[in-house]
Amino acid sequence: MGPGPSDVHPRILEAMARPTIGHLDPEFIRMMDEIKSLVQYAFQTRNDMTMVVSGPGSVGMETCFVNLVEPGDKVVVCQNGVFGGRMKENVERCGGVAVMVEDEWGRAIDPNKLDDALSANSDAKIVAFVHAETSTGALSDAETVARVARDHDCLTIMDAVTSLGGCPVKIDEWKIDAVYSGSQKCLSCTPGLAPISFNDRAMDVVTSRSKKIQSWFMDLTLVLGYWGSHTKRAYHHTAPVNALYGLHEALLILWEEGVENAWARHLDNHYRLRDGLGGLGLALLVSEDQRIPQLNAVKIPGDVEDAEVRSLLLNDFGLEIGAGLGPLAGKIWRIGLMGYSSRMRNVVFCLNALSEVLGR
Amino acid sequence: MGPGPSDVHPRILEAMARPTIGHLDPEFIRMMDEIKSLVQYAFQTRNDMTMVVSGPGSVGMETCFVNLVEPGDKVVVCQNGVFGGRMKENVERCGGVAVMVEDEWGRAIDPNKLDDALSANSDAKIVAFVHAETSTGALSDAETVARVARDHDCLTIMDAVTSLGGCPVKIDEWKIDAVYSGSQKCLSCTPGLAPISFNDRAMDVVTSRSKKIQSWFMDLTLVLGYWGSHTKRAYHHTAPVNALYGLHEALLILWEEGVENAWARHLDNHYRLRDGLGGLGLALLVSEDQRIPQLNAVKIPGDVEDAEVRSLLLNDFGLEIGAGLGPLAGKIWRIGLMGYSSRMRNVVFCLNALSEVLGR
Repeated sequence: MGPGPSDVHPRILEAMARPTIGHLDPEFIRMMDEIKSLVQYAFQTRNDMTMVVSGPGSVGMETCFVNLVEPGDKVVVCQNGVFGGRMKENVERCGGVAVMVEDEWGRAIDPNKLDDALSANSDAKIVAFVHAETSTGALSDAETVARVARDHDCLTIMDAVTSLGGCPVKIDEWKIDAVYSGSQKCLSCTPGLAPISFNDRAMDVVTSRSKKIQSWFMDLTLVLGYWGSHTKRAYHHTAPVNALYGLHEALLILWEEGVENAWARHLDNHYRLRDGLGGLGLALLVSEDQRIPQLNAVKIPGDVEDAEVRSLLLNDFGLEIGAGLGPLAGKIWRIGLMGYSSRMRNVVFCLNALSEVLGR
Repeated sequence: MGPGPSDVHPRILEAMARPTIGHLDPEFIRMMDEIKSLVQYAFQTRNDMTMVVSGPGSVGMETCFVNLVEPGDKVVVCQNGVFGGRMKENVERCGGVAVMVEDEWGRAIDPNKLDDALSANSDAKIVAFVHAETSTGALSDAETVARVARDHDCLTIMDAVTSLGGCPVKIDEWKIDAVYSGSQKCLSCTPGLAPISFNDRAMDVVTSRSKKIQSWFMDLTLVLGYWGSHTKRAYHHTAPVNALYGLHEALLILWEEGVENAWARHLDNHYRLRDGLGGLGLALLVSEDQRIPQLNAVKIPGDVEDAEVRSLLLNDFGLEIGAGLGPLAGKIWRIGLMGYSSRMRNVVFCLNALSEVLGR
């Protein structure tokens, strides 16, 4: 019950143990088509350029940046936690110029500050932001951020690693241009895959670049030969076949439940946890209107030893919760209620274990 | 029985279905240490910088190039198949200059031609080559290639994707500076992971670069914080936990068999297949002294329809063999006897299926 990986659904583990077939086998290609449709459903998009990158969420992030950022491009990065900092790294390694708009860790992105920054940087090409900051538990208003970016003629790159499947993510309705996520949080698949989606506006930028994309592996114009809607798939790299069996099953589970029902379930269990934590005298870091239901940042009381509590939970209860990162190290715990882990029994188990360990 | 992925050992599939734990869990860290030792064993190296990249072999390749090649660097690439061409792409996307030394597809690299090219390019910094060309079935003399490179003060980058675990790979004895492989060929694990190893000479180049590595995800100076020999592991990215369970089991199987025994088994089964193919009137593309035992390139007789045969094998016998690539498309089949697939029963099954389909 940390910030991910979440518990993996037994159906997914079973799927991953199926015999490996070739990455160009017609049966496998058929499964890839289904995965594409299911990822479109999860992202609530009709983007044709919707696929799965053969690497963890960090590769999904880098794929968005290397394809869209050319040397000299100015990118406004909203930072309110660890992952905004990683975006800055990505911009700079692509030869771009990052303009940082900083918000306090534990708070949502302030769209007014972004608007001001874009007015002061009229040559900016892209706005990059994290929808749900896994390091702090703060959820930003993605639709408003995207609207502000579009008002200034910028593309958006959105990190939906923690949000996808756990709270509303509506790529088409919100007009997000490029988005990436990971397999291992609210989709409850094992870590290692990154669903991504680019709309036509973003793909126009990718296909009209003046300089070649610096990564061969992440070059979408090449990967599309394998994942695109072709009658004949061209070999690009050997796909992680069994991991994709797992993701297929994970997306099927989401589709069976219905994505709106999954969002509602995450919210319900968040309320249960919040109420129980209140009963133990524990408060959440993030203000009520900005909380990520699936990632709860809990303030560590002054008289409590952070590492000792986490170690007791792990060793005596088999329960992992997350530590704080950066300026929040030692100040918060991060309790995940993601995907298959978002169940009442886990909320109750976690609260009882915390109660025992804290003696409250 | 194509050029990979090979059949995955049932023990590995079982291992992958184990419950996912956190990528910073002490038990997981302990497993990473074991994986590191086992990869060192497989590569026959003591290099401390030995680890597993969280992506397919292509990411292993790109990791070697982005870390070692700086803009303007000259890299001599030996090409005798598809994957040499991919190396060229990698060099150029790193801003390097690729000097191609071409050999006929289906033949080993000619060390004399390499020597001449290096004499003509005394400013070359790196020699990159493929040990066992999966696209043609030709095995090169890696030790000699590395010696020639060293004589000209060059580092070597070696592709061991198809060779590792199937025929001798001796990184320290041969003095290879950087090497990458994949999980899905002779290790018989599922696709998606890339073992790599850099010696001190290569790491000196990585750590004394003047320009930052262009990929955040593949930057070894960052990944080492997670995979290195530290008492405290720093979070870099979420490791593909279940895929690593699988690789751990795969490496354990190799260690239990003994790597020399694995090499001998691959050779034995290659001889069995070669003899049987001869009985069907089918010849191998590669001359006897340059054959990869685990990847047999079979010449397609003039009166035989390539795609039809492969389709009959797949649909009637559940047997996948590989097609030719590039100039060898339609001219060869590629029959893999890799890892767990390298068994007498598979040789016999494949020969009988071919005999039925070809009516020979």
